[in-house]
Amino acid sequence: MSILETISLDNDVFRAYAFWTAITIFKMLFMSVLTGRTRLKNKIFINHEDTVGRNVEIVVNDEDVERIRRAHRNDLENCFPFMIIGFLFVLTNPSSFIGVNCMRIGAISRIIHTVAFLNALQPWRFIGFLGCILVTVYMGIQVLMFF
Amino acid sequence: MSILETISLDNDVFRAYAFWTAITIFKMLFMSVLTGRTRLKNKIFINHEDTVGRNVEIVVNDEDVERIRRAHRNDLENCFPFMIIGFLFVLTNPSSFIGVNCMRIGAISRIIHTVAFLNALQPWRFIGFLGCILVTVYMGIQVLMFF
Amino acid sequence: MSILETISLDNDVFRAYAFWTAITIFKMLFMSVLTGRTRLKNKIFINHEDTVGRNVEIVVNDEDVERIRRAHRNDLENCFPFMIIGFLFVLTNPSSFIGVNCMRIGAISRIIHTVAFLNALQPWRFIGFLGCILVTVYMGIQVLMFF
Repeated sequence: MSILETISLDNDVFRAYAFWTAITIFKMLFMSVLTGRTRLKNKIFINHEDTVGRNVEIVVNDEDVERIRRAHRNDLENCFPFMIIGFLFVLTNPSSFIGVNCMRIGAISRIIHTVAFLNALQPWRFIGFLGCILVTVYMGIQVLMFF
Repeated sequence: MSILETISLDNDVFRAYAFWTAITIFKMLFMSVLTGRTRLKNKIFINHEDTVGRNVEIVVNDEDVERIRRAHRNDLENCFPFMIIGFLFVLTNPSSFIGVNCMRIGAISRIIHTVAFLNALQPWRFIGFLGCILVTVYMGIQVLMFF
Repeated sequence: MSILETISLDNDVFRAYAFWTAITIFKMLFMSVLTGRTRLKNKIFINHEDTVGRNVEIVVNDEDVERIRRAHRNDLENCFPFMIIGFLFVLTNPSSFIGVNCMRIGAISRIIHTVAFLNALQPWRFIGFLGCILVTVYMGIQVLMFF
């Protein structure tokens, strides 16, 4: 391995890593926007300063808001590990085919997970969850064996 | 791009990235300390092993503790994406002016967010939240276009 | 510093970083599996789509599940900062002895934290928590001074 070759525009795996990491980050930020929009729409506020001038009560639990927040928390638990291990995996210099598809499968799995979670669709939620976990475990094993 | 030039002490943008990432991490760790201190002060314990010898009941919801935890969770949702995309953004070799100010604005926005959240100050909480999101989105678009 | 020397198989500190980061990620993913297994065993489901065909009610709070989730959230708050600062710390080119032991102590502290949390063991939970925080703070100060 030379980092000059792995962290380079000439390396398909690194380019796929950067691209799908950015897409996954955008997907995660969208959860924040969605939570905010749903709070405004359903008038669900948990901080007293947000109720000023709105003539509403504090509401701690709203199923719509909580579902988005559970999906978002699941992102925190799974997307960051995928991205951190993904970067180290790039440095192990995997084949282009395996490396690029790991990034694709991991990121697309998380998109499937989000869509399925927000729409209460099983087994798709589980499939999306599992897809990213399996890719992360595979990449993690490669990292452990390489370093 | 050559990583020899971007990830280097000679690159102002990378130095700003490392500096503000460390500051933001310290800010996040401070939330843990603050949660612990507030739990001790208000005698709010959620784990039974922490109540041993203290003659207190388990309390699940305390507004002081929960507010700090909400601010902390918002950090998890926004600071890590800022740092991960920030690193990839450094590799796109932006101009010194734009790169350094992205790091500054993103990190200082999160400090504003925390101070405003803990003191229930709107619209400052929203301004701090938005500042970091906008920088992250800008950097994310640059990463998508570059790789 | 040259990144060719720090991010290299020849650098013990980077190899320790990659190894212990992967171990810590596996430890974190295990929390997801444990949550799922405990939900199935105790029949605790929070999403209505998971109760289909199981003839059970929605249960929001179950102490077994919530304890695992609190340990997992503590991971999110502490392991990612450790990994992100750890990477920047590798770039400061610390001595092999200090660098390798920072990675070991930080990661092993988190394993101690998890085992202690799941078994309600104090002061071990606190020792594990503190161990990783102290290493992260130490590495963060080195990063601030270097860049």
